[in-house]
Amino acid sequence: MKILVIGAGGTIGKAVARELSPRHEIVSAGRNSGDLTIDLTDSASIAKALDKAGPLDAVVCAAGNAHFGPLLEMTDAQLEIGLRDKLMGQVNLTRLAATRLNPGGSITLTGGILAEQPIRAGASASLVNAGLEGFIRAAAIELERGLRINLVSPTVIAESMEGYGPFFRGFEPAPAARVALAYSRSVEGAQTGQVYRIF
Amino acid sequence: MKILVIGAGGTIGKAVARELSPRHEIVSAGRNSGDLTIDLTDSASIAKALDKAGPLDAVVCAAGNAHFGPLLEMTDAQLEIGLRDKLMGQVNLTRLAATRLNPGGSITLTGGILAEQPIRAGASASLVNAGLEGFIRAAAIELERGLRINLVSPTVIAESMEGYGPFFRGFEPAPAARVALAYSRSVEGAQTGQVYRIF
Repeated sequence: MKILVIGAGGTIGKAVARELSPRHEIVSAGRNSGDLTIDLTDSASIAKALDKAGPLDAVVCAAGNAHFGPLLEMTDAQLEIGLRDKLMGQVNLTRLAATRLNPGGSITLTGGILAEQPIRAGASASLVNAGLEGFIRAAAIELERGLRINLVSPTVIAESMEGYGPFFRGFEPAPAARVALAYSRSVEGAQTGQVYRIF
Repeated sequence: MKILVIGAGGTIGKAVARELSPRHEIVSAGRNSGDLTIDLTDSASIAKALDKAGPLDAVVCAAGNAHFGPLLEMTDAQLEIGLRDKLMGQVNLTRLAATRLNPGGSITLTGGILAEQPIRAGASASLVNAGLEGFIRAAAIELERGLRINLVSPTVIAESMEGYGPFFRGFEPAPAARVALAYSRSVEGAQTGQVYRIF
């Protein structure tokens, strides 16, 4: 398969590329690095990257930001980050990939444990991750040409504990390589509309 | 208690007012009717309505629109309706009510069954309703002064089957009066961070 991995320079993206590259052709994309540059907040940039990549069998998105901070102090602009980037960026990627992927192709997006298990300062991520779960369940029944869509919902990543550890006290981290298996399960499996919870 | 009911002219809102008014003082609000006018897409309008209502013990929101239509044909503007109105309208209502409600007060928002059980043409509502579930779980652990927040997630309303029936074939409708009990459970009960599923 030819697979576009967005966020390929990140902790999860690197592990996904490592998991899939022995068996598939990987095209990497990122905001500042990779074979293609892509800005999830800009639909034109998403369309351009998909078109440049050429015919694809799968798109994996392991990118998307949300602001972490106390809910009652969060500004409108800070809330917009998660909405425009991790949430609508991945929704728009789905809409644009839906008409471009090869028949039978797949879309794999990234959510996270905060959809179910909130932490202080994580309200925006909880909203975004839960919204993505609702979205992929709905998109799965509307995609055409045998296309599939799933969501990987990881706990905090072991390799990211230095930065995120203070937010996630008591959460059992998962190594990126273990989380990467869920992306392989989505891309190389046959299910659709699934949330793969890695926690 | 003094309770602001937003969307009080709607099918659910009327039933909520009917359920709560024998025991509480109701202030009604709506886009075009009620004691106060409110536009959920406009934070200034939300703040003004809350301030005009004066000290409140509870806010119930039974309002919020999302666009129904095939996902692959949905425009950016149609997707924005759900994001700005039902999703961020209720999120912004929460943020603004959090600093204005009386201590120990409650916020009750409205989601819906599409968060879990998708239908064709319902992807925007699925995203929005699921996002609201994630949001209220997170907001519940950050609210201060003993404030509570819950979400009522109803199935299709029996009284709305004429319009919504074709979208919800095979879904068991719930009478608005039965759904209204969940709002009472949220307002007059003591839980927080709960999704009350009425289906």
